[in-house]
This record gives sequence, structure tokens and C-alpha cells, in this order.
Amino acid sequence: MTSHHMTPDEFRRHGHALVDWIADYRERVETFPVLSKAKPGELRRALPASPPLRGEPFDAMLADVERLILPGVTHWQSPSFFAYFPSNSSFPAVLGELLSAGLGVQGMIWATSPACTELETHVLDWLVDMLGLPEGFKSSTDGGGVIQDTASSSALCAVLAARERATGFASNRDGARQDLVAYTSTQTHSSIAKAAKIAGIGESNLRLIEVDETFAMRPEALERQIQADREAGRIPFFVCATLGTTSSTAVDPVGAIGSICEEHDLWLHVDAAMLGPAALCPELRFLNDGLEHADSYCFNPHKWMFTTFDCDCFYVKNRKELIETLTILPEYLKNEATASGAVIDYRDWHIPLGRRFRALKLWFVIRHYGVEGLTHHIRRHVELARQFAEWVTLDERFELAAPAPFNLVCFRHKGGDGVTEALMQQLNDSGKLYLTHTKLDGRYAIRMSIGQTETEEKHVRAAWEQITALATSV
Amino acid sequence: MTSHHMTPDEFRRHGHALVDWIADYRERVETFPVLSKAKPGELRRALPASPPLRGEPFDAMLADVERLILPGVTHWQSPSFFAYFPSNSSFPAVLGELLSAGLGVQGMIWATSPACTELETHVLDWLVDMLGLPEGFKSSTDGGGVIQDTASSSALCAVLAARERATGFASNRDGARQDLVAYTSTQTHSSIAKAAKIAGIGESNLRLIEVDETFAMRPEALERQIQADREAGRIPFFVCATLGTTSSTAVDPVGAIGSICEEHDLWLHVDAAMLGPAALCPELRFLNDGLEHADSYCFNPHKWMFTTFDCDCFYVKNRKELIETLTILPEYLKNEATASGAVIDYRDWHIPLGRRFRALKLWFVIRHYGVEGLTHHIRRHVELARQFAEWVTLDERFELAAPAPFNLVCFRHKGGDGVTEALMQQLNDSGKLYLTHTKLDGRYAIRMSIGQTETEEKHVRAAWEQITALATSV
Repeated sequence: MTSHHMTPDEFRRHGHALVDWIADYRERVETFPVLSKAKPGELRRALPASPPLRGEPFDAMLADVERLILPGVTHWQSPSFFAYFPSNSSFPAVLGELLSAGLGVQGMIWATSPACTELETHVLDWLVDMLGLPEGFKSSTDGGGVIQDTASSSALCAVLAARERATGFASNRDGARQDLVAYTSTQTHSSIAKAAKIAGIGESNLRLIEVDETFAMRPEALERQIQADREAGRIPFFVCATLGTTSSTAVDPVGAIGSICEEHDLWLHVDAAMLGPAALCPELRFLNDGLEHADSYCFNPHKWMFTTFDCDCFYVKNRKELIETLTILPEYLKNEATASGAVIDYRDWHIPLGRRFRALKLWFVIRHYGVEGLTHHIRRHVELARQFAEWVTLDERFELAAPAPFNLVCFRHKGGDGVTEALMQQLNDSGKLYLTHTKLDGRYAIRMSIGQTETEEKHVRAAWEQITALATSV
Repeated sequence: MTSHHMTPDEFRRHGHALVDWIADYRERVETFPVLSKAKPGELRRALPASPPLRGEPFDAMLADVERLILPGVTHWQSPSFFAYFPSNSSFPAVLGELLSAGLGVQGMIWATSPACTELETHVLDWLVDMLGLPEGFKSSTDGGGVIQDTASSSALCAVLAARERATGFASNRDGARQDLVAYTSTQTHSSIAKAAKIAGIGESNLRLIEVDETFAMRPEALERQIQADREAGRIPFFVCATLGTTSSTAVDPVGAIGSICEEHDLWLHVDAAMLGPAALCPELRFLNDGLEHADSYCFNPHKWMFTTFDCDCFYVKNRKELIETLTILPEYLKNEATASGAVIDYRDWHIPLGRRFRALKLWFVIRHYGVEGLTHHIRRHVELARQFAEWVTLDERFELAAPAPFNLVCFRHKGGDGVTEALMQQLNDSGKLYLTHTKLDGRYAIRMSIGQTETEEKHVRAAWEQITALATSV
């Protein structure tokens, strides 16, 4: 009788081959069109309609990865990927993910793998120092940090904890109320609207506060809206401020917003999903000004800190509120360590119950690069973006669509939306680079996001050369 | 100037070493105590208080994994891990996770990596055939499947879609109402209560329906409760039935429950998180009887189908309802493929926005084992559990605490709760195996869950010998 299992020796052989394939892939990533040219349904038509009855050799699968999967891949790890936001990865992070899968442990509670919980707490405490975050986010205080999958999930947890604080935990018991009001800016990520819907707040109870000319929230407009809602008998309970909006990396004035939140007893969540790691650089740490007002904060090492997706770091100032919001303790999860109160059980810090050992990849990344190495690359990306912004400014056919103080440059062709959009389309069709767009002040803008692990000056320069060459012809 | 990045050649070298370490780990996993003997804070005290300023060599990290991390690991992949539920992993799945990390793509929308979306849809369609699920879950119909992280997240999505259907999408707009009522059994997983809280339904509006002597929901009690709630002016909207409860793998009568749901227009979600793969075996496929009534369904290949966590497969009969519940479409995500309507954008099928290429590991597992190989192992685990249950029955000191038709045996010492608990404690302290408990009919029961990848008859037999040997002394 065959065991069907892959033996450790077979795993060694196939594992080595796959490691080599990944190294090769990263070495030749620039030979592929950055944006996949696959047509809808193309991959599915190439796959067998039915699953195999008998097992197949691993070599056949790896051949299919090369032949079938790769053409359908958009190469996020290409140094000429300038679309969306970086979702940068690094080899140490890949190794961390491999180790996590190899150990195959569940970290839902401390007892199910103490190292999974403790390494996570430890590394998240390190990051408080590395980024100069408020001391109140450390696990040695009333606060603490946890790894979530994404900033969307962190935002939802923040909305939920805020909802419970505002209602004395009655929403958990009796259901949500329709008179709670949340606030964010017109530029805030869509995840806040999604969280408001999920949490039973309702999108019509989410106020989108106007922004200034830098696309940052106007605190005086926030205060006016809160007053108006109070006067209308509604209950303001939550504000999300953003450090680095998705469209243009605008930075909301957290200090001023925080003072308003404290005055009116609102939960302040600060979303620094992409931009958070900028605070590694002392010259950019002003980013965190006012953060001591925040009840919760998140940033994504899986965006701009070389830690393969998924890895969002979520901090709260008062972990008891979060835990009380999300806790469950069925009989089958009870155990001595939990009962002792001496340990953290991360199951009560997020939506899912099960969780994998994601701290390993973050630990590997921090140890491989060191604080200096990480800081070096963040600083370099910002320098490249500033250089690119300068080129845009100096070319009379183009203009900046927003300030570009970090790693993102929003720009447009002065010929108008049609020309700008056509230009971007042609650039992406070339396969040489990949850019995406947004709208700012109602007008089309191309977003040049510089943050992939292997992006160097030559890639940014080549991108600009392609842009200017095409600008002549559109 | 150093780049700080690990080069492809360094990655080859360290990757090979780590693959070998993982193969070694799995080969020597039986030499460790299954349940970690770490004390709270032990790992943290051994780690440096501050992050390294300069980068460190990978060899140092791997040495620390061996020296510091391993003692804090509870060995879920040990063949003598009989606790909780299986969270079984396999080498092909580990390779799939490695490839996903190596490619480093984002599958939030079709356009950001078409292969990520299409392989997922394809493999989830395969599973409909493999498990004999209703055809209406296939993507060629109005339904479809998606990979979520956990069954908890699937349950939340089901509750949300049900909430919106029941309120004409007004909850998303205006907030949740306090008169919606959800139903589940007293044995249902805690994730449903958590979802009711998150979604603004309120735990007091979740009715726990009584169960019969097999711990399965009593449909007549469900119907009575729905009637009573209707008469009280409330709005019943959601039922969760379970195929394989957490405590004892009880199977709710989905056919009868489904008829009630249809009569009263309630959303029926079916949670088969652990037990779903049993339906691979024709002789166990009765499990799916009545499933054609379900509006949504989920099971976890990461529990009992050798696919490293996280991988929960969530199906809906009407994908439009799910998508309309969770959709967001900010300007920066708009693209031609989405606008064409010809593709699936999975961002609208779950809570997070970003998503990794999890279909790869599921594809590798199915192809490596083939349907025959997977079926063989599921069947074997069930045979081993039945053998164990027979031993329990034949030993006059013990009794079964629940029927054991699948891979879980709940049993107790006839000497009472104290004796049963002490016995389990001593067994776990021995380090030779790991068992957890539950309460059934208010009494303590040990759960013997048989489903780890490498568990064979000798491990189950050794467990029983240890149990009986200790039973003599307690």
C-alpha cells in the first residue's frame, strides 16, 4: 500500500528545485511584461476540467507553473512595478513564510504554540522603538500589538472596539444602533467604509470630511461636523486619520484631530498602512507627530518593509477594550495558561480564530536587514521619488497632481484627462512598467509608486524616459 | 554601498538549508514533547530587548530557530497530536506556500494577477465535484467559491450577506437593526456568536437551539423558536447548521433545517470546517444530504485535507448577494477587466482587500495526492478512530461521551470529571501525545482527534496504551 505522502527526501529534492526556480524567477523578472497580458478565461481553458484521480509528479506541477501560471502573473516584484502601492517582498521574508509553513503550528492561543505568540509580541514591541511609536503601544503597558492580515481587518477591529466603548459593550449584546457616527476624510481608504458597513454602523453614518489643498483632513471641518451631529442627537464615536492616503500619501494632522477626539471622547484610529515605515528615517519621523492621541494604529510591513504579504501590525492603547470586544472562550479552548492571565491569547485580537506563525518572517526581515538596512532602503525610495517629482516639475508638458514628499508621485499631462489616461494605457501596454491612476480634485492622475525591493535609479530613470518619449506622440 | 538585500545565490543557499531543516524537523518531530513545555515569558526573556542595528547572517537566525523557537513550539504536525482538530499539513502544501511567497503577487482583483483568481476559481470548482457538493456552488452557475483565511471569516461573510438580504441592503446603508434574529445550536462553533457581535446583530439575538442525544440540532425546536420570534415581531434571518461540531462532530439535519429556512425565507449557512473532506469517501458522502438547501457552505482544507493553514473554502449559491454586500470600488481600483464584467474580483468576496496566491497550495495538494490519495487518507483516519472507539467501548473503565462516526472520539473515565481531567493532564505532561477536552451534557470528556498527516495505527495504539496504563494509576 502506498502512503501517497511526499517523503522528507522527496521534499528535499523538490524544495531545492523550487527554491532555485524562485531565485531564477527573481533574476529574470524583468524579462516579462510587468502587467500580465492574459485574457479573461485563458488560464481556466488551459487547465483540465476535472481534478486528477491519481497523484502526479511534482516536476509536472512545476512545469505547469512555468507554462500556465507565469503568463497570468502580474509581476509585483518587478523593479518596474510602480502601480498601486508597493507590496514588496524579500528573500528573508520568503524564508520566514517557508519556515512558518514547515512548522505548521496554530497560534490561536498561547498554549497552542507559546513561541508563536511571544515572538509576535516581542517583534511588535521592537517596532515601537524602531518607528518611534508611542510607548503606550508596548505590551509592557496597557496596550500592545498584533499581526493582522491587512489594514482592512485592523480598521474593522478598531471600529468594533470603538463601537463597544461608545455603547458600554451593549452593541455586542443587543445589536448595533443606527445613531452612531464615524468620521474620516474624503481621501481615506475604502476599508473604512467597508468596516462601517460590516460593523452595522451604516455607510450613511460615515461622514467624509473635506480636505485641504494637500488632501489632508481639515480638523476644523471635522469639529464642525461632530458638533452638528451632536446637536442632531447623534453619537459621534470614531475617527480614522490617515498617514499617507492611498491616492496621494496625504498626511492628516493627527495632533489636531486627536485633540478633537479627546475633547469629544471619540476613538482615534490612525491608518499608516503603506507609509508607516517612513518613520524609520529620523528625517521623516515627523510623520508620527500627534500619534500619542491614537487609540489604535496600524501599518503594513507587507507594503513597504520587505515582509511578504500578509503582515499588518495593529496596535492599541488599551488592549482590554479590544479583547473584551472580540473575546470568545468556549470550553474546548480553556486551558491553564489562559486561566492564569499571564499570557496573551491572540485569538481575541482579531476576526479569525486560527492564525499562523507570521512573526517569523518579520523577525527574519528585521534581523537580516537590521534597522540600518531597512532605513537605508526606505530613504533611498524617497530620494528616488523626489528625483522623479523634480523631473516632472521641470518638464513643461507635465504637472504634479499632489505634493510628493514620500515615495509616491501623482502627476498628469497638461493636455488633460484623456491624454493622461491614454499615456498611461500605452505605457502599461508596453509591458516595460506598470502604473495605475487615481482622481484628485476630480481630475485624472497617474500614480508613480516607488517602493519595490529591487527598484533602483535606473528603473525610475527608464520609466521617466518611456513616459517622456510617449508624451511626445500622444 | 551595500545593497543589504539577500542575493538570489544567497537565497539558493539558505533556501536549501531551510528546506533540509524542515525535512529534518518532520523526521525528528516525534522526539519532542508534543505540547510545548515552555513557561510564560521564557522565549521573550531569551530574545534581545532591542532590534539589531546591523544585519545578521541567516545561519544565526536558523540557529536561533533551533535553540529558541523550537522549545516554544507545540508540534501540530506530530503524528501523536490528537488535540483540538487536525490542522494537517503536507510537503506539497508547504511547497505551494513557498511558491506563493516567492511570486509575491496580490490577487485582490483579477487584473492584479489573473492566474491568482482563475486558479482559485478553477480548483474550487474541482472541489464541488470531488466532494459531491451542489452544482449551484460552481462558478458556471449563479454561485461560486472563494478561499478565505478561516471558517470564522466565512461565517461572518454569510451573516453579513444574510443581513443584507433580509433588510434589502439597508443595514449596509443605515446600520444594523436590533430586531434581526439568528439561529444555531448549542453545539455550534463560537465563531457564529462572534460573527453576530461583529455584524451588529447582537449576541442576545442569537438563539441557541437545543440538540438531540447525538448533539445534533432539533429541527422542531428550531421551527418553534422561529415561530415564537415572528409572533414577537422579530425578524428571523439566518441559521447556521454544522456538519461536524467542534465538541463531538455531531451532524445537524441539514435537509430538515433547510426546509424550515426555505419556508421562512432564512439564509442557511452550513459549516463543515473540519468534516467537509469526509465527503471524498462515497461511504461518508451522506454527510452532504440536504446541502442543496444551503445558501452558503464552508470547509477547511487546512484542517483535514493536508493544505497548510490558512485555506478555508467558502461557497455561495448566489454570488451577487455576497458581492453586493461587500463591494467597494474606489477610483484607484477601477480597471478595464472589472468594468467588462467578464472577470471575478475576489476583493468583494471577503473582509480584507489584499490577498495572496493561496490556490497554489491547494492545487499542489490535489495534484500530488490525486482524488484517490486524498480519499485513502481520510478513510484511513476514520478507520483508526473507529478502532479507537471500539477499544474505549471494550474497556469497562471508560465510556464514549458521544457517537464517533468520523475522526473524533470523545470519551471519559467512568470515575467522573476529576479522574478524566487528571488523566488527560498526566497524558499531556508525559509529552508523548497531546489531547484536549470538551464538555458534553455538562460533563468533562477527552477528545481524541485523529487526522494528522503522518498519524498511523501505531500512534493511535500507543496513545491507547498510555491511556490505559495511566488509567490504572489515577
